[in-house]
Amino acid sequence: MTPGQTSSDISPASGTLNGRTHVLPIRVYYEDTDAGGIVYHANYLRFAERGRTEMLRAIGIELGRLRESEGLIFVVRKGDMEYLKAAALDDCLIVETTLAEIRGASVLLRQQISRLGDGDANEELFNFNVHVACMGPDGKAARMPSALRGEFEKLL
Amino acid sequence: MTPGQTSSDISPASGTLNGRTHVLPIRVYYEDTDAGGIVYHANYLRFAERGRTEMLRAIGIELGRLRESEGLIFVVRKGDMEYLKAAALDDCLIVETTLAEIRGASVLLRQQISRLGDGDANEELFNFNVHVACMGPDGKAARMPSALRGEFEKLL
Amino acid sequence: MTPGQTSSDISPASGTLNGRTHVLPIRVYYEDTDAGGIVYHANYLRFAERGRTEMLRAIGIELGRLRESEGLIFVVRKGDMEYLKAAALDDCLIVETTLAEIRGASVLLRQQISRLGDGDANEELFNFNVHVACMGPDGKAARMPSALRGEFEKLL
Amino acid sequence: MTPGQTSSDISPASGTLNGRTHVLPIRVYYEDTDAGGIVYHANYLRFAERGRTEMLRAIGIELGRLRESEGLIFVVRKGDMEYLKAAALDDCLIVETTLAEIRGASVLLRQQISRLGDGDANEELFNFNVHVACMGPDGKAARMPSALRGEFEKLL
Repeated sequence: MTPGQTSSDISPASGTLNGRTHVLPIRVYYEDTDAGGIVYHANYLRFAERGRTEMLRAIGIELGRLRESEGLIFVVRKGDMEYLKAAALDDCLIVETTLAEIRGASVLLRQQISRLGDGDANEELFNFNVHVACMGPDGKAARMPSALRGEFEKLL
Repeated sequence: MTPGQTSSDISPASGTLNGRTHVLPIRVYYEDTDAGGIVYHANYLRFAERGRTEMLRAIGIELGRLRESEGLIFVVRKGDMEYLKAAALDDCLIVETTLAEIRGASVLLRQQISRLGDGDANEELFNFNVHVACMGPDGKAARMPSALRGEFEKLL
Repeated sequence: MTPGQTSSDISPASGTLNGRTHVLPIRVYYEDTDAGGIVYHANYLRFAERGRTEMLRAIGIELGRLRESEGLIFVVRKGDMEYLKAAALDDCLIVETTLAEIRGASVLLRQQISRLGDGDANEELFNFNVHVACMGPDGKAARMPSALRGEFEKLL
Repeated sequence: MTPGQTSSDISPASGTLNGRTHVLPIRVYYEDTDAGGIVYHANYLRFAERGRTEMLRAIGIELGRLRESEGLIFVVRKGDMEYLKAAALDDCLIVETTLAEIRGASVLLRQQISRLGDGDANEELFNFNVHVACMGPDGKAARMPSALRGEFEKLL
């Protein structure tokens, strides 16, 4: 819980937290596709960010409040990604987000996007290892406040 | 139901159909906002299209199948829109979509986007009257097949 | 020229101002298209906003500086749009922006997007009448400072 | 030159090819930014794709024609990216794209996005190593036709 914020202020999160892994379902709309008939590659990063945002909301951190109350934003520093298969219009996707490591001013997450299949036959589409850093109002890396860090630690 | 398609083939729709009006909740993420600190104006059209897509799915029409099985796509022909208040990061929005009129090759819809408030105090943000036409594989306006038209008529 | 700003501070504008009409060429990339094989309808609003931004830069107004030095942003209040033909991948488009009217806290513009053809055979694709308002740091409509208003008046 | 295509059919490319490196200038608009006041991280991938597309156009390959005449599209398979500094509204960016390696069904490129500064003081913002594969109409990896491969080889 960040200062000035109580859990009752937080809007209901989407998705579910299963142990260390957050699971968010996402539907593919026309806006997400391109003329190749598949999801435009950069849009997997939008989906991944929705997954990270909902994982944070599930543990009591809301990004808008964090920016307003503490002047902190999270920014992507590094990422490596692998595209295995393509998603298409109307697909139901599952974004899985796992916190891998907490550092002083950043966190590492592993994310996977799959297509929801019949039964348990989900198909892996996209893997993403992403390093997200905490940035202060001056645009420089900022150590996470201990309350914020404590929220993350519950996930490990 | 379009030919070759059964209701059991349709993935579960998001949102709910209340009489003639479909209601879809949407969360605002960083991807939707701009440096003015609010939702980028063109993104309300993305939200509105999600609302129309889920309304169609709720009555048994899936856009990807329609394109594959019949070569038909829906395209926006005309729209007029009004922005009343701005949405911000983390807001919960409600997209309401009402079918207003069915013509031979097009439909008219009224859409409203509101911010979910406490109790029933939703705030109107955006109004959109939109004329959507059916287009065939030749890129020209196409009359809607009677099965498709019949699906729409259930909404009136 | 807004206070604290000199023309030499302004980066070079794209496009050209022909009398009251600004003309901006735009290329269609995969990011702009959707699985229908054409430009996604909401993206014409992105193109139109690029046209307005470059028209402003051509007369000495830069949106980022306006926000930082005066706390003012321009927001879309109303718009009506008509889609005549669809743009496709690799098309060269022309965004034409004409200032139609200046009011105390807002301006009206007419915009047209065409596909560049051989010779003078451009094809009209999209017409947009848009009402853009000046908004202050409190999120409310703000009268335009007279220097800003004076810049716009040169266009009439 | 792909079959059925002559260099005179190709629209004029943006940017310039300096030896093996293509250089494309890009302006940052409101659509590219987010509520953090900076360019949304996924949008660097859109900018990078514009750079790759214009590099291809400069050597006589147009993506829309390639898809229509040969049924081939290029898809991103892998990428690793590093964000060094953030771009902001109104920034002039430079996308540099260098072909690093040609394989049978894919190519590797190195891309860098910088902010255009005064004199030669450009600031590096984003580095991207990207592996792009050729995909056939069946959605599977496809060997590049020798004419297409030949075009790429001119860049090495």
